[in-house]
Amino acid sequence: MISGRCAACKYLRRRCPSDCIFSLYFPPNDPQRFACVHRIYGASNVAKMLQQLPPPLRAEAAETLYLEARCRIEDPVYGCVGVISQLYEQLQSAERELAKTQAEIAVLSCNPQEAPFDQANSNFNNLLPHQYCPPSTQNSWFN
Amino acid sequence: MISGRCAACKYLRRRCPSDCIFSLYFPPNDPQRFACVHRIYGASNVAKMLQQLPPPLRAEAAETLYLEARCRIEDPVYGCVGVISQLYEQLQSAERELAKTQAEIAVLSCNPQEAPFDQANSNFNNLLPHQYCPPSTQNSWFN
Repeated sequence: MISGRCAACKYLRRRCPSDCIFSLYFPPNDPQRFACVHRIYGASNVAKMLQQLPPPLRAEAAETLYLEARCRIEDPVYGCVGVISQLYEQLQSAERELAKTQAEIAVLSCNPQEAPFDQANSNFNNLLPHQYCPPSTQNSWFN
Repeated sequence: MISGRCAACKYLRRRCPSDCIFSLYFPPNDPQRFACVHRIYGASNVAKMLQQLPPPLRAEAAETLYLEARCRIEDPVYGCVGVISQLYEQLQSAERELAKTQAEIAVLSCNPQEAPFDQANSNFNNLLPHQYCPPSTQNSWFN
C-alpha cells in the first residue's frame, strides 16, 4: 500500500503521480466519492472533463459530477432529471398559489366591504375566492 | 455503409446486432443524441446502465441520460446541478413572495378599512401595493 495516494489512485490500484488530476478533488478519506463517479462516468471520462476546465473551476465540477453520479445511482431511470421535474412541479404549484393569493388581494382591495370577516374561522386557504382565478390565468402564469 | 444501423453502431463503426442495446433508444436519424451520451458517459457505461434496467424503463433512462449529458456539455462545470440550483432559488423566492402576500391578506382581512380604494385605477397588477414587493425581491424574481 503506497501511502498518500488519492481515492482515485487507490481505487484504480496505481501510483498517485504528483500531478494527478484526481488528487485535489478525491481525497483518500472519502473513497465512495470516487467510486460513484467512476461507476457512472468512468475514470477516464472524469479525468478528461476535469482536464478540459481551468483549474479554479475543477473543484466545483468534481462536486457536481459527484452529485449527478449519486443521483443516477439512487435513481437509475431519472437521475438528476427526476429532481428537476419535482422542483419544477413545486415551483408551478407555488406560482399558482401566489397568483390566487394576489387575485384575492385585488378583490379585498377593491371591495373591502366584501372581505370575509369571520375572524374565528379565517385562515389563508379558505379565504381564497376561487372564482377569481380562471384556469387560463393559472396555466399561463409565468410560462 | 450498412443500412439500418442505429446511431450508436454508426458512431462506433460497427455492425448493429439484432439485439443491440442502443438501437431502440438511439435511432439513426438523431446522431447527436448518441454523440452526447458517448462524450459524457462513454458507450460502454451507457450500455451497462441500460442493461441493468428492466426493458420498459430503458427509454426513459436513455432520455434522461441524454438530457444530463447535454446539460453537462452546455455547462461543463455545473451540468444539471446548475439547473437544480436555479429552480431551487426560484422556488424559495416564490415561497417568500407567497408568505408576504398571505401576510398582506391577513392584514387586509383583519383591517378592511386600511385597504386602498381607488377603484377607477384598479386592476390586478397596479392594485398590488408595491411596498410589499421591495425592488430586491422583484429583481431576483426568476433570475
